[in-house]
Amino acid sequence: MSADIANDVLLQRWNSVRERIAAAGADGVLLGGGSDLAYLTGYEAMPLERITALAGRLSPTFSKPTLIVPELEAARVRPRPEVYSIKCWVDTADPIEVIAQEIPESGMVLVSDDLWAMHVIGLQRRTPGVSLVPIGEAIGGLRELKSPKERDALAEAGSLADEVMGQIHRGEVPLIGRTEAEIAADISDRLLAVGHDTVEFVIVASGLNSSSPHHHPGSRVVRADELVLFDFGGRFNGYCSDTTRCVYTGPIPDEVRLVYTILAAAQEAAVLEAQPGRSLAQVDLAARSIIGGAGFGDNFIHRTGHGIGVEVHEPPYVTEMNKDPIEVGHAFSIEPGIYFAGKYGMRLEDIVVIEPEGARRCNHSNRSLLEV
Amino acid sequence: MSADIANDVLLQRWNSVRERIAAAGADGVLLGGGSDLAYLTGYEAMPLERITALAGRLSPTFSKPTLIVPELEAARVRPRPEVYSIKCWVDTADPIEVIAQEIPESGMVLVSDDLWAMHVIGLQRRTPGVSLVPIGEAIGGLRELKSPKERDALAEAGSLADEVMGQIHRGEVPLIGRTEAEIAADISDRLLAVGHDTVEFVIVASGLNSSSPHHHPGSRVVRADELVLFDFGGRFNGYCSDTTRCVYTGPIPDEVRLVYTILAAAQEAAVLEAQPGRSLAQVDLAARSIIGGAGFGDNFIHRTGHGIGVEVHEPPYVTEMNKDPIEVGHAFSIEPGIYFAGKYGMRLEDIVVIEPEGARRCNHSNRSLLEV
Repeated sequence: MSADIANDVLLQRWNSVRERIAAAGADGVLLGGGSDLAYLTGYEAMPLERITALAGRLSPTFSKPTLIVPELEAARVRPRPEVYSIKCWVDTADPIEVIAQEIPESGMVLVSDDLWAMHVIGLQRRTPGVSLVPIGEAIGGLRELKSPKERDALAEAGSLADEVMGQIHRGEVPLIGRTEAEIAADISDRLLAVGHDTVEFVIVASGLNSSSPHHHPGSRVVRADELVLFDFGGRFNGYCSDTTRCVYTGPIPDEVRLVYTILAAAQEAAVLEAQPGRSLAQVDLAARSIIGGAGFGDNFIHRTGHGIGVEVHEPPYVTEMNKDPIEVGHAFSIEPGIYFAGKYGMRLEDIVVIEPEGARRCNHSNRSLLEV
Repeated sequence: MSADIANDVLLQRWNSVRERIAAAGADGVLLGGGSDLAYLTGYEAMPLERITALAGRLSPTFSKPTLIVPELEAARVRPRPEVYSIKCWVDTADPIEVIAQEIPESGMVLVSDDLWAMHVIGLQRRTPGVSLVPIGEAIGGLRELKSPKERDALAEAGSLADEVMGQIHRGEVPLIGRTEAEIAADISDRLLAVGHDTVEFVIVASGLNSSSPHHHPGSRVVRADELVLFDFGGRFNGYCSDTTRCVYTGPIPDEVRLVYTILAAAQEAAVLEAQPGRSLAQVDLAARSIIGGAGFGDNFIHRTGHGIGVEVHEPPYVTEMNKDPIEVGHAFSIEPGIYFAGKYGMRLEDIVVIEPEGARRCNHSNRSLLEV
């Protein structure tokens, strides 16, 4: 299956990646199947055990990479001789041998962060002189800097998710008396109905379940007078949405309202901090210092955000350790949370894309804790 | 999310794996998230960048492995102190450090075939004295030998897929005038309607597209007087179905009928060969020698089959290089194919499970090339 990306867009992407690889002092690159390969070739490889890979070497030439595909999937690949050469391997061949011919015998070769261990170890044995380095560590995410068109696509996907959040806020999605799983299925249908091509995930976490950040919606029935957390996203035109809001199924207790106010302030501060030239760590710390200052530092048990694009989670990650500068084209979530184990928890999440003038939010649904 | 597997089943599985690891001379094991981890713990980890892993070491004791989980997902894990210990890592920690403490500093450590490169390379740097070996290479697939209950589950899943194939054979699924994508969507709905919990894949390949074994159903409209290949499967109670049949949308030309006869003979011979004590290579060669003998050896461009269980593709693989013996409990596809590039192609596939008396087919839909 080949996405309809023009050759000149692919060449532009490859040239930019090639420069970053060279700047990192690497001698070659090996990407397994997955989003990076699709980003550079337009080809979506099957996620099975037969490896598809994109290999390139810096010398003697580094003009064009080689797309290595299982023979029986060759007919799925659109020939693009300007962008890549194609090399097939048959079921009786050792794909490591085929790959080894396309990368240098020595020096540093960057490999996909998620290349399979059997291929990493096989290649290291076959070519002991080479130093394999995870590409994310060497040059960051290949797809980290989004073009204006990609940023618009993220904003569009975000507005679709907002439509469904609006339906929840307006009380159009029944909550009390239904199980989390039923509500999650309802939200999935709505994500598709408003225009998403696929649903990537739906978290519905009610009452004490909301204290588990990655709760899996289950058989718990939503009751009156409790907090319900919604975190969901889908894909539209290849780009992902991801947003989180909390509601209360009754009058909001003062304590909950107070904690929520702190959360909302932390999220707002982090969004304002997300500007070109500042660091990703500063965004994390902007949220963390407000929550910590209010005495809930131990209850904010995860990083502030993750990059997003063709995958829901991708670099850059917004953590206090990531001192990398924020750049125009970055796209990431800003989603601080405050959790009280076994009681309740809350999180507030928008996707932002970085424009020259600062963070542009992709989500605009009501950010208050609403009673529904 | 935790599957409802009893502790004693998990302990039995772990003890069996532990013995195989010891027999291979390994000193420890490290499984990343995925089906092997779920098989041994009942816990389905989120397939995201934060690693979940199961680690064990042979000495001084090897009684119980450690389940290493991201802190924010800890509440998803069901405590099973009889089966595993739990160790959490927070977003500001380096998970490699946490993992390194749970595996030996030297000797051989078996790792999941699909452990991510960033973890393999990170661990090798952190613990240079250890030799990391892909677990599949050392001991084969962890889940290769299916219990009688698992074999029955595969047979049940197979009979659901057969129901849909029967609908196609009886002409209940309109073909001529519809696109492959429309027919594939229809089949997906039917796979769910007959009882599958999920649809794993649907290939509809018509006319010349049938010559591409892993064709992605697209906009081509099915016409009269051509071959249409169907290859699909879903999941039922955790186990997968996978079956392939071809039909002809009009009177079958003699040449096509002849080639199909050879294909059917090859599949039958391979199924008969699938007996305890013979090798997996013998199964492949039983099919290959018939197709080769008829002069179509170059048109059979893939292996004869793949293992199946909780995943659609898993060990053992049925190739001419795999000399491993067939054992009671093995479950795999037998799916020879004959392809004429740019013209048409055909494949015939049943899942078999190995019982003491030989191969038991999980698929029973009509194996002839029917005119529909």
